[in-house]
Amino acid sequence: MSVEQDTAASGRLLATVRGPQDVKRMSAEELDVLAAEIRDFLIAKVSRTGGHVGPNLGVVELTLAMHRVFDSPRDRLLFDTGHQAYVHKILTGRQAGFDRLRQRGGLSGYPSQAESEHDLIENSHASTALSYADGLAKAYALRGESRSVVAVVGDGALTGGMCWEALNNIATSGNPLVIVVNDNGRSYSPTIGGLADHLSSLRLNPGYEKVLDTVKDALGSTPLVGKPMYEVLHAVKKGIKDAVAPQAMFEDLGIKYVGPVDGHDVSAVESSLRAAKNFGGPVIVHAVTRKGYGYRPAEEDEADCLHGPGGAFDIETGKLVAAPSVKWTHVFAEELVAIADERPDVVGITAAMAEPTGIASLARKYPERTYDVGIAEQHAATSAAGLALGGLHPVVAVYATFLNRAFDQVLLDVAMHKLPVTFVLDRAGITGPDGPSHYGIWDMSVFGVVPGLRIAAPRDAATLREELREAVAVDDGPTVVRFPTGTVAADLPAVRRVGSVDVLAESARTDVLLVAVGAFGQLGMEVAARVAEQGYGVTVVDPRWVRPIPAELVELAAGHRLVVTVEDGVRVGGVGDALAQAMRDADVRVPLRDLGVPADWHPHGTRAQILADLGLTAQNVARDVTGWISRLDVEPVEPVRLSADDAAASN
Amino acid sequence: MSVEQDTAASGRLLATVRGPQDVKRMSAEELDVLAAEIRDFLIAKVSRTGGHVGPNLGVVELTLAMHRVFDSPRDRLLFDTGHQAYVHKILTGRQAGFDRLRQRGGLSGYPSQAESEHDLIENSHASTALSYADGLAKAYALRGESRSVVAVVGDGALTGGMCWEALNNIATSGNPLVIVVNDNGRSYSPTIGGLADHLSSLRLNPGYEKVLDTVKDALGSTPLVGKPMYEVLHAVKKGIKDAVAPQAMFEDLGIKYVGPVDGHDVSAVESSLRAAKNFGGPVIVHAVTRKGYGYRPAEEDEADCLHGPGGAFDIETGKLVAAPSVKWTHVFAEELVAIADERPDVVGITAAMAEPTGIASLARKYPERTYDVGIAEQHAATSAAGLALGGLHPVVAVYATFLNRAFDQVLLDVAMHKLPVTFVLDRAGITGPDGPSHYGIWDMSVFGVVPGLRIAAPRDAATLREELREAVAVDDGPTVVRFPTGTVAADLPAVRRVGSVDVLAESARTDVLLVAVGAFGQLGMEVAARVAEQGYGVTVVDPRWVRPIPAELVELAAGHRLVVTVEDGVRVGGVGDALAQAMRDADVRVPLRDLGVPADWHPHGTRAQILADLGLTAQNVARDVTGWISRLDVEPVEPVRLSADDAAASN
Repeated sequence: MSVEQDTAASGRLLATVRGPQDVKRMSAEELDVLAAEIRDFLIAKVSRTGGHVGPNLGVVELTLAMHRVFDSPRDRLLFDTGHQAYVHKILTGRQAGFDRLRQRGGLSGYPSQAESEHDLIENSHASTALSYADGLAKAYALRGESRSVVAVVGDGALTGGMCWEALNNIATSGNPLVIVVNDNGRSYSPTIGGLADHLSSLRLNPGYEKVLDTVKDALGSTPLVGKPMYEVLHAVKKGIKDAVAPQAMFEDLGIKYVGPVDGHDVSAVESSLRAAKNFGGPVIVHAVTRKGYGYRPAEEDEADCLHGPGGAFDIETGKLVAAPSVKWTHVFAEELVAIADERPDVVGITAAMAEPTGIASLARKYPERTYDVGIAEQHAATSAAGLALGGLHPVVAVYATFLNRAFDQVLLDVAMHKLPVTFVLDRAGITGPDGPSHYGIWDMSVFGVVPGLRIAAPRDAATLREELREAVAVDDGPTVVRFPTGTVAADLPAVRRVGSVDVLAESARTDVLLVAVGAFGQLGMEVAARVAEQGYGVTVVDPRWVRPIPAELVELAAGHRLVVTVEDGVRVGGVGDALAQAMRDADVRVPLRDLGVPADWHPHGTRAQILADLGLTAQNVARDVTGWISRLDVEPVEPVRLSADDAAASN
Repeated sequence: MSVEQDTAASGRLLATVRGPQDVKRMSAEELDVLAAEIRDFLIAKVSRTGGHVGPNLGVVELTLAMHRVFDSPRDRLLFDTGHQAYVHKILTGRQAGFDRLRQRGGLSGYPSQAESEHDLIENSHASTALSYADGLAKAYALRGESRSVVAVVGDGALTGGMCWEALNNIATSGNPLVIVVNDNGRSYSPTIGGLADHLSSLRLNPGYEKVLDTVKDALGSTPLVGKPMYEVLHAVKKGIKDAVAPQAMFEDLGIKYVGPVDGHDVSAVESSLRAAKNFGGPVIVHAVTRKGYGYRPAEEDEADCLHGPGGAFDIETGKLVAAPSVKWTHVFAEELVAIADERPDVVGITAAMAEPTGIASLARKYPERTYDVGIAEQHAATSAAGLALGGLHPVVAVYATFLNRAFDQVLLDVAMHKLPVTFVLDRAGITGPDGPSHYGIWDMSVFGVVPGLRIAAPRDAATLREELREAVAVDDGPTVVRFPTGTVAADLPAVRRVGSVDVLAESARTDVLLVAVGAFGQLGMEVAARVAEQGYGVTVVDPRWVRPIPAELVELAAGHRLVVTVEDGVRVGGVGDALAQAMRDADVRVPLRDLGVPADWHPHGTRAQILADLGLTAQNVARDVTGWISRLDVEPVEPVRLSADDAAASN
């Protein structure tokens, strides 16, 4: 274990690094020691907080070289999928922050303008950095500013269409711009696609042997790697072979290509970057790296190189410290396989995240019925439309935040054709430590406008299984099943079902109808108990299917004096809002209050912390509800019907 | 004029074509005559209805060859940007429908499952067909069905990232699939980007001379082209040179490449397609065509080859028959140039639609400040973020329906960074003849959830100019300015302004607050006049800025007995809905009715017809409003305040 190495563990050199200028002064020998110290630092810190350890171990030397060649913040360093910016943070004065990485009030797991002038884009969705870079380079050219723009993008991100759009434009504009392809042959899991396949079978590049030698030398001179040398060599060799350059392709586009360069050799990367910097036009520097480099548990993790442990892990094994619990993802994965056993027409799609979304379970049993499309959500949706047109029922499993990238495709390609595609949105609602760009709080509003699309929000494992089965049984349009991150809530049985709506609790008095969406079922029960203590009767319901609004929900609303909705998504256009509109259309004039997430940028923290910050706790909601209903006692509402029939242009 | 040619004008052969089988039987000579007859038919019909004449003149021979080689509907022919499917419609029994092309109840301008079993995808947004094709091919492979899948995609559509995502996946899956690249060097305007630049400067392909000869022969044997032969040859030569094949690129990806083939030579295309069909894996057939081929006004139209005249045009000149009127687009274009004269930091972006969006006016005066990014809305948004980070204020002009493709980029890349980017949405609301996929009815709901994004909906030319200036003056976040298609409404001055809200009409009685969004201002005035005749007082307001909801609007609502909103967008999550939520949050319990477009798939027709179908006429709205307000006289509402202060988790 490198962490036990004396030189490195001391962290003496790292302690002297206050900013990029301190790295610029160092000798080659010092840089080697610093790289080792940074790895030890990363492993030690992230093993306590959780975070993206694998990707950052792979870019230590790359980031050192970047800060030696370029002058940040005057020159702009942009990190695609910003979770690979930890080393950059370490080198720009933020070492102290790593004790509270991804914790409320602590260091963000992504670049952050608020943290440092060295951070420009707070980017976390893949494949965007080249587009920012194109715009920045155009702006500097127009304004006559001589500043370098450098974008680091993974080979996985190159499977996203935005990169292609950007490369096409970068080539046209011809502005100076350095694209560093951080090629580790993986996105989360191994990178898929024609490009990757091609690379792995391609003729060997003349530079290959040279790079291999360099790596060999590096391995010989560094004590970082604890595994047998031949294994490392074998793996590195494969990595380099996989990455042999697509020069012809990039140069056909009109972008100068430099590489491949050994991404773990600071001086080699440096000289490539200097050449690129001075070229005067767009240049791709192809750096070959290994995700998890220098840390055995990461290197030996075939699935995802210890991509991003969600919490503290054991340094020796890389295993999570927390006791295993049943996650929403596991329940979904298990039920999907069970459904696939019965239904040969059910197939699965993942956008480069087979393990995190649970699609890997399906892939293990039915590899021929599982498709990894790369980091390409648009293609995931429209190829699902094609699969459905071919008579299959695709289940597309993505994080809720990422389906936003395929809104138009879900709307027109899937829904307009009334195709049976099920989108399973994991990590819906407030997610936590990854911060604002990862919150899955938009889906119920944004996809709520899609005609014919049905959205289910299960409250526990039993309803997840049930609603997933209902979703794949729908054959005349798309469905969405959305659930939060983390450990699945304990099963919460219904007392009865009205239409598709589950009644979770009832009272002799029908004062308040509390609509608890999805995982807020348990919170709804606690609120009801508290409000009951004040003498009011609360009916708690889980609508199960939240779009379109079930007619029974409107009828239930009409039988109460107050309706309160609580949901794990933005209030604007949310389920409560949609219920209010349905009530207006039906002339049900019972007052309604809709609680949910304000449409805003919420910081990182734990899910529980953020929900508490937003007032979405049982105590808080109960206080609100009690206040509202007690006020109604003082000033009773007389419901008025505006019209006997539906309004003209009602939806 | 080919239309005057005796052989062609007779249309004798075309009259015998009832379906693809009739084309399969024809001799080479008959096919030449048929192609001429189809061109004459297209020009004659579309000159009366308007429609996509240029693209379809370019694919006559291509479509003939496709129907001879493949067996539709068993084999599946998919047309990217479905407006190039007119010839396909002619060959599949729908000639009679062309008299009512794009008219209500008549033939759709896009493929339509309801019209024919030969149509599968009702696709109109570019770059999607390859993704459908990948899905279909995977489904047929899994189900063991031996059916060919053929996708026709323009070279312009290849600038869209989805194509790249699809190609990457198609290469991986290796399923048989034929991709016909219809390469005319243009999307709407000439195709931009590194790929196109590369193609035009590339080494000549060995096949080039052969293709040129073929074209020469074809020209010699056909009387179709009325312009001097050398001009044609020159243009065709340039076309072919521009299209010299990117074999290396596609074959690097693992996709077999065939071409370039002269797309106006039926037998040449046929033999390429037969080879591709029998190959047993993914194949690209690169066909070189000319948009508008065989019709002089289209060939001589440098701007867009008579891409899609919106109405009837003169056959001799290609000019629209209708008297010119001032369009919303023109007002925007003029004002943008005026702003750019004053503000050197204002730059323009178009996604391959410089002329239709008016950005061409800016490009003519300030070419160095105008960027055409190709059919790449995602890159348009995120490169705009980059430009803004570089100190500029980009104005991104797109059709409303197309910004949906960049929702995630607007949300995270632009809005999360609080960047000053103005999105100008032309063709917002009900557009008309292009049908459901072109309706711009989603923007106010979908982009309404984006924190910090402000949306303006001008009602006339004066407010468009004013609100555009207000939008580019915003420096702390994104703005949207949205307006409908067609002729701009007459200026409608306000009687006074309350905050940012224009009061258009007032009355001594404050019965109804009528919120008329954007271009519905005039309709609001007419409704008020009709309701006043029934003895009720109506205040008509135009909020101007509809997101976020202006506080003054909520205050105005509180001063009336009934609020009615009317908007040119979907009701779900629309402006009326958002006002209702703002009123709930402020405890303003005046009843509200929100009128707008139901979230559904509305057919093609004129804008006026569709609005009338939806009940969005002055007469209809006035009847609704009168009904609602008169009912309130019978059963008055006592407003009840639920709470004195704001709710906990209110937005």
